Amino acid sequence: MRIAAPALLVLVFALRISAQENEPDLLRYVDPLIGTQRMGHVYPGASAPFGMVQLSPDTDTLPYAVNGTYNPDVYRTCSGYQYDDSTIVGFSHTHFSGTGHSDLGDILLMPTSGALQLNPGTVADPRSGFRSAFHHKTEKAVPGKYEVLLEDHDIKAELTASTRVGMHRYEFARRDSIHVILDLVHGIYNHADKNVWTFVRVENDTLVTGYRQTNGWGRTRTVYFAMVFSERITHYGQQPDARATEYRGFWRKFDQNKDFPEMAGKQLRAWFDFDLKPDAKLLVKVALSSVSTEGALKNMKAEVPHWDFDRVVRETQDSWRKELNRISISSKRPEVLTDFYTAMYHACLSPTVYMDVDGQYRGLDQNNHTAVGFTNYTTFSLWDTYRALHPLFNIIQRERSSDFVNSMLAHYDQSAHYMLPIWSHHANENWCMIGYHAVSVIADADVKGITGFDRKKALDACVSTALVPYFEGVGDYIERRFVPEDRSGSSVSKTLEYAYDDRCIAHLAERVGDAAIAREFFDRSDSYRNVFDKASGFMRPRNADGSFPKEFDPLDTHQKGFIEGNAWNYSLYVPHEPVELAKLMGGPKRFGEHLDSLFTMRLDDKYFAKTEDITRDGIMGNYVHGNEPSHHVAYLYNYSDRPWMSGKRVRDVLDRMYKPRPDGLSGNDDCGQMSAWYVFSAMGFYPMCPGSDRYELGAPVVDRASIPLNNGKIFTVLANGQGAKNVYVRAVKLNGQKLDRTYLTHNEVLAGGTLEFDLSAQPPKQ
Amino acid sequence: MRIAAPALLVLVFALRISAQENEPDLLRYVDPLIGTQRMGHVYPGASAPFGMVQLSPDTDTLPYAVNGTYNPDVYRTCSGYQYDDSTIVGFSHTHFSGTGHSDLGDILLMPTSGALQLNPGTVADPRSGFRSAFHHKTEKAVPGKYEVLLEDHDIKAELTASTRVGMHRYEFARRDSIHVILDLVHGIYNHADKNVWTFVRVENDTLVTGYRQTNGWGRTRTVYFAMVFSERITHYGQQPDARATEYRGFWRKFDQNKDFPEMAGKQLRAWFDFDLKPDAKLLVKVALSSVSTEGALKNMKAEVPHWDFDRVVRETQDSWRKELNRISISSKRPEVLTDFYTAMYHACLSPTVYMDVDGQYRGLDQNNHTAVGFTNYTTFSLWDTYRALHPLFNIIQRERSSDFVNSMLAHYDQSAHYMLPIWSHHANENWCMIGYHAVSVIADADVKGITGFDRKKALDACVSTALVPYFEGVGDYIERRFVPEDRSGSSVSKTLEYAYDDRCIAHLAERVGDAAIAREFFDRSDSYRNVFDKASGFMRPRNADGSFPKEFDPLDTHQKGFIEGNAWNYSLYVPHEPVELAKLMGGPKRFGEHLDSLFTMRLDDKYFAKTEDITRDGIMGNYVHGNEPSHHVAYLYNYSDRPWMSGKRVRDVLDRMYKPRPDGLSGNDDCGQMSAWYVFSAMGFYPMCPGSDRYELGAPVVDRASIPLNNGKIFTVLANGQGAKNVYVRAVKLNGQKLDRTYLTHNEVLAGGTLEFDLSAQPPKQ
Repeated sequence: MRIAAPALLVLVFALRISAQENEPDLLRYVDPLIGTQRMGHVYPGASAPFGMVQLSPDTDTLPYAVNGTYNPDVYRTCSGYQYDDSTIVGFSHTHFSGTGHSDLGDILLMPTSGALQLNPGTVADPRSGFRSAFHHKTEKAVPGKYEVLLEDHDIKAELTASTRVGMHRYEFARRDSIHVILDLVHGIYNHADKNVWTFVRVENDTLVTGYRQTNGWGRTRTVYFAMVFSERITHYGQQPDARATEYRGFWRKFDQNKDFPEMAGKQLRAWFDFDLKPDAKLLVKVALSSVSTEGALKNMKAEVPHWDFDRVVRETQDSWRKELNRISISSKRPEVLTDFYTAMYHACLSPTVYMDVDGQYRGLDQNNHTAVGFTNYTTFSLWDTYRALHPLFNIIQRERSSDFVNSMLAHYDQSAHYMLPIWSHHANENWCMIGYHAVSVIADADVKGITGFDRKKALDACVSTALVPYFEGVGDYIERRFVPEDRSGSSVSKTLEYAYDDRCIAHLAERVGDAAIAREFFDRSDSYRNVFDKASGFMRPRNADGSFPKEFDPLDTHQKGFIEGNAWNYSLYVPHEPVELAKLMGGPKRFGEHLDSLFTMRLDDKYFAKTEDITRDGIMGNYVHGNEPSHHVAYLYNYSDRPWMSGKRVRDVLDRMYKPRPDGLSGNDDCGQMSAWYVFSAMGFYPMCPGSDRYELGAPVVDRASIPLNNGKIFTVLANGQGAKNVYVRAVKLNGQKLDRTYLTHNEVLAGGTLEFDLSAQPPKQ
Repeated sequence: MRIAAPALLVLVFALRISAQENEPDLLRYVDPLIGTQRMGHVYPGASAPFGMVQLSPDTDTLPYAVNGTYNPDVYRTCSGYQYDDSTIVGFSHTHFSGTGHSDLGDILLMPTSGALQLNPGTVADPRSGFRSAFHHKTEKAVPGKYEVLLEDHDIKAELTASTRVGMHRYEFARRDSIHVILDLVHGIYNHADKNVWTFVRVENDTLVTGYRQTNGWGRTRTVYFAMVFSERITHYGQQPDARATEYRGFWRKFDQNKDFPEMAGKQLRAWFDFDLKPDAKLLVKVALSSVSTEGALKNMKAEVPHWDFDRVVRETQDSWRKELNRISISSKRPEVLTDFYTAMYHACLSPTVYMDVDGQYRGLDQNNHTAVGFTNYTTFSLWDTYRALHPLFNIIQRERSSDFVNSMLAHYDQSAHYMLPIWSHHANENWCMIGYHAVSVIADADVKGITGFDRKKALDACVSTALVPYFEGVGDYIERRFVPEDRSGSSVSKTLEYAYDDRCIAHLAERVGDAAIAREFFDRSDSYRNVFDKASGFMRPRNADGSFPKEFDPLDTHQKGFIEGNAWNYSLYVPHEPVELAKLMGGPKRFGEHLDSLFTMRLDDKYFAKTEDITRDGIMGNYVHGNEPSHHVAYLYNYSDRPWMSGKRVRDVLDRMYKPRPDGLSGNDDCGQMSAWYVFSAMGFYPMCPGSDRYELGAPVVDRASIPLNNGKIFTVLANGQGAKNVYVRAVKLNGQKLDRTYLTHNEVLAGGTLEFDLSAQPPKQ
């Protein structure tokens, strides 16, 4: 019987999968506009899954700094697009999805008609420049395709992308004076000195190549491109007032502003004119490379050798179907389907492929390298994504997980610091946020059986990363087992995250068989205790002399010692020792009450105003879902006297913090972490402590979910008694057997089978 | 008998060559300080023949422009070194030899002792910065090695170089506070915006890598380096006030000024400290690459894997001996030996190798390329060097000539203009000067039997280059057969040089067998007639309407229509039709008188003051040897009624314009052109019309010269009756036969044999 049951289930699900072929195309559940308004910071444009090109409209070009002073408004346009904006300045080819700091927006194209305009103009008067007004009613965004009417120019613009090539299709209602602007000044989080160098060559009458080199969040970053037009360029030129574009001293020799095929300088805008036949559309292909314009051209020839725009759409959408189909869910609530598959979509936008079709890529040392035996990726927003996104990949993107580890090891090989990435993009370490969470990603991959990387080397890389004394107080941390606030800020957040990361290293070392390293890092991983203040019951900053400074407000996000979370939330950050944490907090009952107070207190407005990255909707009591330090907190109830409250809180967050509307994301999507939290939590389990093999149980919002695993098995979640108010888990069965614990192991997932939740509108009695 | 004679000669010369082994080392005749004072613009430092590294002291850092205005004083330091200066700011690794505009000066190192100083300080008070006073009495320059005492720091510095690696040896008299400054701000012809980006990585405790990217004469130029110290770096850091060096927004995370191994920014100076044992010397190896720091490291490992400074000196000096031995001369006058071999030395400094040991190099398209089947070179100062330097190479550096042609064809392949180089260096076209003289270099190589390049493609490249309508009036030239001054300046110089270049293309096309192209370019090559004004007897500028503008002063260098030469000199520029030129000028007698007046007139001071690039010593009458348009002029006497005056004038120039002293060069050496003129003229013959197979005869200053050819034969020049006043050629014999013409052919040189001049103090009677 026990043996027969799974076999029967396999049959059942085989039938269900077969039935899915007649089910609606999952693409219809994805709305790329969700999260484009306010804080979500995602972009609505076209990208292949994990694609190198993110071709998307940019609605404004706010400068990062004005006269050297940070411009807070720039934050609105981290992804280049803000739903509330009324104009589009053009379509650029690189975008982050959901970040809270930014860069990119490279290689902006803008088709225009009428008089040639070489400045973007103003929002108030879009006709003062090449930008155009637009309305959402003419805008359509689906995975792999975006379209919009550029009203000022009467141009319908459609965008699609393969992994490394963006493709534009422009349909002109007017036939006279057709221009395409290539704006290399434009960028996201731009400032006056951001452009280091730009370079354009008109190779022949349809091919243009070049690069943009910037000094921004990526300190030393270059994007090469090759651009081909479907029609002959009749004339072209550059903006005459561009700075330092001339061949120094030899400007007089040529008219370098018109039909001169080599342009270079710091602030380069070029224009291209076309004579179109009636009813002709203008197509543009733009391939990118981190290596060279030759590499970009290779990418174009390999991926889009043709001019069939619709074929690119079709192929990219097929790729999206494949990724979305990695989890099948059912729900009677349409918004759940939309939220879930939009989250799946956002979760599969980054990390991004970062190599040419021949394996070449620009490394952290600014030399070109070749990826041998793996696909190289970049855009590692690790402080965010180690939590749930990489664990999700370790179930549904296991080959890519191996590539991600190998990409991080290549970064380590190229690091002058002998460190794994902290937050890396485009051959740069941007050092954003704290901790060294690449070790968590590696440990989680390893404990979950991801192969294809050198485990011994991976351990060496983790240890080396954790021993760099000048990195963010690590030297003091090693010596004192806490980071002293008077020597390195955000000291409590750092101490707690280092302690967690160190536990990941310890477990990895155990598995690799290095007992001495394991001992050392187990010891370090206890360091969370050294910032706990019994008197206040909170984690608190300490100075180098060991003292707790007097001033302390656990609700203040700007309380010294913490970053992107107040002391109240951060004091719950001991994912690797939740039992010990509950003890520190007074035992399971006190811990349960403490968690309840978190979700139910009324946060004074004075605190709310200071809380970054979130909207009023993004906060429940003092629980801030819009920032990541809280993401495991609901699951901590499993270590209190009221474990059913995990499900209740998770369901509240799922319903209140994710909505199928442009402003539906309560905080930055952070390269898919917010979305991965949704995907896991919607299915009723969550990796509270990545690097361990456990998933904490919550309460599913889906009716059913099934995950076809790459070992051929299927893991299924069933929610019995699902309903909007049925948010309490009364019982859980695994493969028909009652589960008398609040967690699931990774092996249980990999074995396939069925996890059944019995849901109820009432909490169970103790 | 006729057959026996050459055999006998071979024997004689074999004995002579054997005897040379006991003759003085030719290195002793080379004085790299000649030409370092005033106008010569050569550098005294260490370089291998045609080396990629030119490691030389820089005596000052004058800015190219101050507040956007050109600073004329910068001209003094085109080579980084000016003999009259009293301080050295350090040793940089790239220098032009003899140019009249400049760039480079990359990767400056300066060893210092005492308090750390990160600014160069002032000439008036060298102790205000890291620069040091020095005196010529402690300075020693020989091929492949330079040494000097840095007095302010009590440091003896010695420099040597292999092709791609510079090596420094520093001996410190004081043991405390030893620093090495790495100054990436420094450069030649620097200005505030010249540095585009600089990047430094401290890879480990002895290895430092990085690059310097600039926007100067080379518009988009990057030099990568790898630097290894023989002793451990104890501490290091960067100048704290450097602009834009921080990781933006994350500066607070680290102390990036000290012991932080990644530095980047626009104005980067780094320092390295050492604890030296008593009597230890500090050695530094710096390898360059145009491709990557990895390429630089490869170059270092391949060329200088050891720490034996003296071995590098020895090997590079052996390379120099090989190059100098390509012509053996004898003279009773020591200054002739010094002038000749110093000229040979200067002639073999450029073009410079421009690829890594694995063949990779940065191309004009800013992509990396691999040279297959040839060695890639750069530094093509073609307006200068097509005249005599490349023809000299076509005798004594025939393999390199083939490489030079292939390097220019690679440039053509990478050109957005579909053009051969005009004046190219370091993956850049700098567009300096006029004409498209690469076609002359190719035609001369071809007519002289240089092989190893694709002749058909070479012809295509020449034709394509000559057909670019937007280049310097070429469109108008094609249409009107002259460049109209009102549409493109220096129009007469351009018309005359295009006509000459076109004849080169015509002859090349003839040989390749393309009759149509030959016809077209023969026709174009007659265009010199279209700017000749019979009324004045000079070449004169014309406007697009065909008229000669009224104002015209043939003696004024700033006369419109001309560049680097007045109308008087430039009117003699028809190297491909000297007979026709003499006719235009009134026939052989009038032509002879005209030439006499050139050499003997007294140029009014008002003209002299305006004449560029030359000293009073550099001018004879109105003959300006310091600028190249005159270089063929003395040989034009061969087309007058007084051909013996060629020798007389040549001998005057040899004696007066080349002197064995620091100020011994009368004008810019121009990448070896002035020196190649000397080498040819000293032997009594000169390629008046490169691209033809003829050498015009002058009068040798050597007693004897022998050129061992790479076909195993030897060509010898003998000067019978040589003497300081014996400057008139009375008779010439080739292989014992009287030569009744004033020229020699290339085949006669290649056949080996002996050219004998009978010299006399009196001109022959008609």
